[in-house]
Amino acid sequence: MPAQPLNQRHYANAIRALAMDAVQQAKSGHPGAPMGMADIAEVLWRQFMRYNPSNPNWINRDRFVLSNGHGSMLQYALLHLTGFDVSIDDLKAFRQLHSKTPGHPEYGYADGVETTTGPLGQGIANAVGMALAEKTLAAQFNRDALAVIDHFTYGFLGDGCLMEGISHEVCSLAGTLGLGKLIAYYDDNGISIDGEVEGWFSDDTPKRFEAYGWQVIGPIDGHDADAIRAATQEAQADAARPTLIICKTVIGAGSPNKQGKEDCHGAPLGVDEIALTRAALGWEHEAFVIPEAIYEAWDARPKGDVLEKNWDGLWAQYAQAHPSLAAELLRRLSGELPADFAATAEAWINGCAEKGDSIASRKASQNTLNAFGPALPELLGGSADLAGSNLTLWKGCHGVQDHADGNYVYYGVREFGMSAIMNGVALHGGFVPYGATFLMFMEYARNALRMAALMKQRVIHVYTHDSIGLGEDGPTHQPVEQLASLRQTPNLASWRPADTVESAVAWREALLRKDGPTALVFSRQNLVHQARSAAQITDIARGGYVLKDADRIDAIIISAGSEVSLAMQAADALSAEGLGVRVVSMPSPDTFLKQDAAYREAVLPLSVRKRVAVEASISDYWHRFVGLDGAVVGMTTFGESAPAGDLYAHFGITAEAVAAAVRGLN
Amino acid sequence: MPAQPLNQRHYANAIRALAMDAVQQAKSGHPGAPMGMADIAEVLWRQFMRYNPSNPNWINRDRFVLSNGHGSMLQYALLHLTGFDVSIDDLKAFRQLHSKTPGHPEYGYADGVETTTGPLGQGIANAVGMALAEKTLAAQFNRDALAVIDHFTYGFLGDGCLMEGISHEVCSLAGTLGLGKLIAYYDDNGISIDGEVEGWFSDDTPKRFEAYGWQVIGPIDGHDADAIRAATQEAQADAARPTLIICKTVIGAGSPNKQGKEDCHGAPLGVDEIALTRAALGWEHEAFVIPEAIYEAWDARPKGDVLEKNWDGLWAQYAQAHPSLAAELLRRLSGELPADFAATAEAWINGCAEKGDSIASRKASQNTLNAFGPALPELLGGSADLAGSNLTLWKGCHGVQDHADGNYVYYGVREFGMSAIMNGVALHGGFVPYGATFLMFMEYARNALRMAALMKQRVIHVYTHDSIGLGEDGPTHQPVEQLASLRQTPNLASWRPADTVESAVAWREALLRKDGPTALVFSRQNLVHQARSAAQITDIARGGYVLKDADRIDAIIISAGSEVSLAMQAADALSAEGLGVRVVSMPSPDTFLKQDAAYREAVLPLSVRKRVAVEASISDYWHRFVGLDGAVVGMTTFGESAPAGDLYAHFGITAEAVAAAVRGLN
Repeated sequence: MPAQPLNQRHYANAIRALAMDAVQQAKSGHPGAPMGMADIAEVLWRQFMRYNPSNPNWINRDRFVLSNGHGSMLQYALLHLTGFDVSIDDLKAFRQLHSKTPGHPEYGYADGVETTTGPLGQGIANAVGMALAEKTLAAQFNRDALAVIDHFTYGFLGDGCLMEGISHEVCSLAGTLGLGKLIAYYDDNGISIDGEVEGWFSDDTPKRFEAYGWQVIGPIDGHDADAIRAATQEAQADAARPTLIICKTVIGAGSPNKQGKEDCHGAPLGVDEIALTRAALGWEHEAFVIPEAIYEAWDARPKGDVLEKNWDGLWAQYAQAHPSLAAELLRRLSGELPADFAATAEAWINGCAEKGDSIASRKASQNTLNAFGPALPELLGGSADLAGSNLTLWKGCHGVQDHADGNYVYYGVREFGMSAIMNGVALHGGFVPYGATFLMFMEYARNALRMAALMKQRVIHVYTHDSIGLGEDGPTHQPVEQLASLRQTPNLASWRPADTVESAVAWREALLRKDGPTALVFSRQNLVHQARSAAQITDIARGGYVLKDADRIDAIIISAGSEVSLAMQAADALSAEGLGVRVVSMPSPDTFLKQDAAYREAVLPLSVRKRVAVEASISDYWHRFVGLDGAVVGMTTFGESAPAGDLYAHFGITAEAVAAAVRGLN
Repeated sequence: MPAQPLNQRHYANAIRALAMDAVQQAKSGHPGAPMGMADIAEVLWRQFMRYNPSNPNWINRDRFVLSNGHGSMLQYALLHLTGFDVSIDDLKAFRQLHSKTPGHPEYGYADGVETTTGPLGQGIANAVGMALAEKTLAAQFNRDALAVIDHFTYGFLGDGCLMEGISHEVCSLAGTLGLGKLIAYYDDNGISIDGEVEGWFSDDTPKRFEAYGWQVIGPIDGHDADAIRAATQEAQADAARPTLIICKTVIGAGSPNKQGKEDCHGAPLGVDEIALTRAALGWEHEAFVIPEAIYEAWDARPKGDVLEKNWDGLWAQYAQAHPSLAAELLRRLSGELPADFAATAEAWINGCAEKGDSIASRKASQNTLNAFGPALPELLGGSADLAGSNLTLWKGCHGVQDHADGNYVYYGVREFGMSAIMNGVALHGGFVPYGATFLMFMEYARNALRMAALMKQRVIHVYTHDSIGLGEDGPTHQPVEQLASLRQTPNLASWRPADTVESAVAWREALLRKDGPTALVFSRQNLVHQARSAAQITDIARGGYVLKDADRIDAIIISAGSEVSLAMQAADALSAEGLGVRVVSMPSPDTFLKQDAAYREAVLPLSVRKRVAVEASISDYWHRFVGLDGAVVGMTTFGESAPAGDLYAHFGITAEAVAAAVRGLN
């Protein structure tokens, strides 16, 4: 190290060195953003952020989201330097199989990574969700001076995030909801992958965010520690508005020949340029070597222990003053449902079976919410401006825009934003978020659903108006291939129930599932109730089960959702002709496929090759269940605008067609 | 009619009456927006818009897009009143099967509907595309005073469109590109489906659009014809900036008890309220009855004929002064490729076969663009800030941001916006748009792709980095289920080529396909060249063909893209063991499935049940080809971050695994 005393620039340069060295070692990665944001990160992580590397899951830690996730080495360097369980060897294994340091920050791989980022714009959306969760949880649980939930959510983002539409959706909503403890730093370096952004991105970003009701600070010099500190203090001081701090930075700052250019965005600097950068920075240490003095300056464990201890004291007071609230908050944060939920659910499901209503499954969903909701204060519901159509409001709902301790979010027409915010809410903890739109507009949000599956988060999507059965709104609103897309997504559970009983079971399974998201797909139109034995009701949870059987199984009809009643009618007609027909209701094919081989064989014996599947959905999907010898009655084109009954006839999705398909098999 | 002379309010009330009556007749639909925007529509369509109902396809017509497509009865009423081929009986058949008047405006159903709208935000994106196409085509073809391409693009939009993220993406880009002939009217009625928007939408919209570099006019009274006229004149006068006119309106204006409330947004007013509305408006006519005097005032055919005749005169001068340009423009607008394209393509494909390069298919794509590009001036390329990764720039590219007559759009990080803009470009005519991103981020744009398929538009999507083969960027960037989603979308063609030859054929097929979009899916990594006979090269276009055969077919291995080389290696190993193995390369399963039964049987004989499919993609999809007795070597989980070779080994997608799977079949 140079003779002069260590200063903040030296600490920041430790990030720069680790980032360029790790990217070089991996022969791939993005040095530009970590080097450009190093000074901002140094100020935030060393001077402001409250966290404890020794306990990464401390409840009241500040949350940090790297929305420009390609700059992952920035976050890994910070975790390493501050004392999280990320070693220098972990950094050397950057982007290698089974390392803690994958190419983008992946939730669950390294302590301190609060969310998976990389798909641009979604990180800041997650941050909005975390800030919303913090505000709502605080309002629900804090009492008097005992603010046991009281933390900031910080986000870093780049121009890519700001160009993405989702940034509009979530930042607009964050402004409307007044999420004052959300603070975002914009890495305004003027460079994106294609070069200088001015040719394709000329927004007046301060003005844009003022239009959203944010506090906007800057532009400041993103390499000036004092300016960053002052801006952060100002941001924290405004409790009513989220803050955007606009930081003018130089991408790849420190690299003599590549800084300020797109070359350093997504490729290693190269051995020669790294040597030049070391010289320019006055960084005299070998690759992956950090001097002890710099480690000491970065070590956040002592301060973190103090912060947590102080909070422990607060918590002790809280637990003494409000013992049941404290227990409930711990339960909520643990993700465990109330102990009596299983009994509540079973009673409700059996009640549905006894009652035998033939109603729309979206209505069955709402009824179930009314049954489960009072027992589940962790529910944080919502809809993308379709509450009255999705039927997501239950009797105990209060909107968070008017009630800080509410349990329902009017997300507006923002499907993608809603879904990514829900991911942030789930990641924060304390809530089970559910949100809704028409099944078709799942597509607007599809990648956020995938991110929930990738991050194994319990997020529940209610998708109504699930097929041509929605009728007159026509093909732009009628899902065809969307169910297949859901069912083929790894770690996503999807359910399309056939009636009130399957709807109630689907909700229960979604709530019980702690390691991934669920899509609950409901009809607009009424569905015929199906009678079931107790054993059949139990088997619904297996995703597929025998709904109607025969002594001799000549043929099997497989169906889901609104078409199960057609399958049953067809089976009746065929039985009258002397054919032995089994009907399998398969509300969740993905769940069924996860059952053991013996169960699957018991439901769909391999020896029975006369198989017909029927669903008002893309027929392609069902071929895997009927095989080369079977047939599918389904959709092969887009829908049309007409009353639902006319459409079923027009597209030939009828009991008669199913029966004919069975007869037509060799 | 009242005794006083007819005025603009009466004309607007004709829209209101038709909208409420048709929605009532259909027992479903959205009267609120048509009634709220009737006065704006009256001014625009009667006083400003240049179109000819007698020739809806007049080249130089102004384009109109109803981005709030649920207000479809507004557009249908306008088309009917101005003299398009939309009769009163067509209006009575609103939302019925096979009518010209589906629930949302559907392109291709009624003359005068320029695009399909309903999925919010995409209409305004299409409008941006149309305005971009107009500006670019004008720059390419207009000469001196002969502005044969010179029209406005008008859009109506509501708060739903403004909440959607895509509105940010496209309006930001429209501002940067200075699309001065784009004029949008914002129906600022303060109501969305969930009620008064202030609880979830509090943007300062004027400020937001000023931040995008738009001219913002208003708020004006959207029921004041003079104000609307003045605003429109002001909008037209600014040639450098797109304009947003903010119109304060009352949703459902005219309905005494429902106006200004969400009740009238998406449901019929009801018979009683319609009677009250008639009285309040002073509209004394029966349902679906329009007085002759009002028809006369609306009839746009005489004016339209004059406008078109005047333009015909201009065109005659143009054609005389620039005969080859005129012929080329007509060709471009017809959508026909140059006569010699087939020969160009064939020569290039055969050259690829001879050369036998083993390169990444994204590079093969770029080489093909360099080969085809000079012959196809209709290409309007682009990428969502990944030009250097997608390899979409070819030697003849010039960015439209610097060259008004250019052929390449730097879309910025705006996948959804790009895709919906491309739809607008294609609908406008004169171009074959192509655009690119990583295959994963197709998801951000998925619904725009679907809209292209629904509208049967030739739009070409280049999706690179198509699998775990992209390596270190990890699971957020590695497609798994995305290919299945593309292949299962009706009327979407998708290709995942195995080498340079298949890549060239895929590009040719995409360009030749006039009635729908194509997704071209390319690898990041190098692919092994495969040798083929001339007949095999010809069969590539059929989507699936026999790449390697055996005298006796004991087993079939089916594959696509980068895994075809694994299939070939496995077949070699199995052949050495005495097994007769056929290898089917299936770059486009959807295309293959459209072939006649005899061809499909010839390639995949039903009698051969030992079938294994191999692809680094979700295995679910391939079961339809291998049946209940076959096996699939593919992905069943998300990917990981590591070098590509490590990932193939980790996930067991290897030639050895394929051979073992074949051996394992009974």
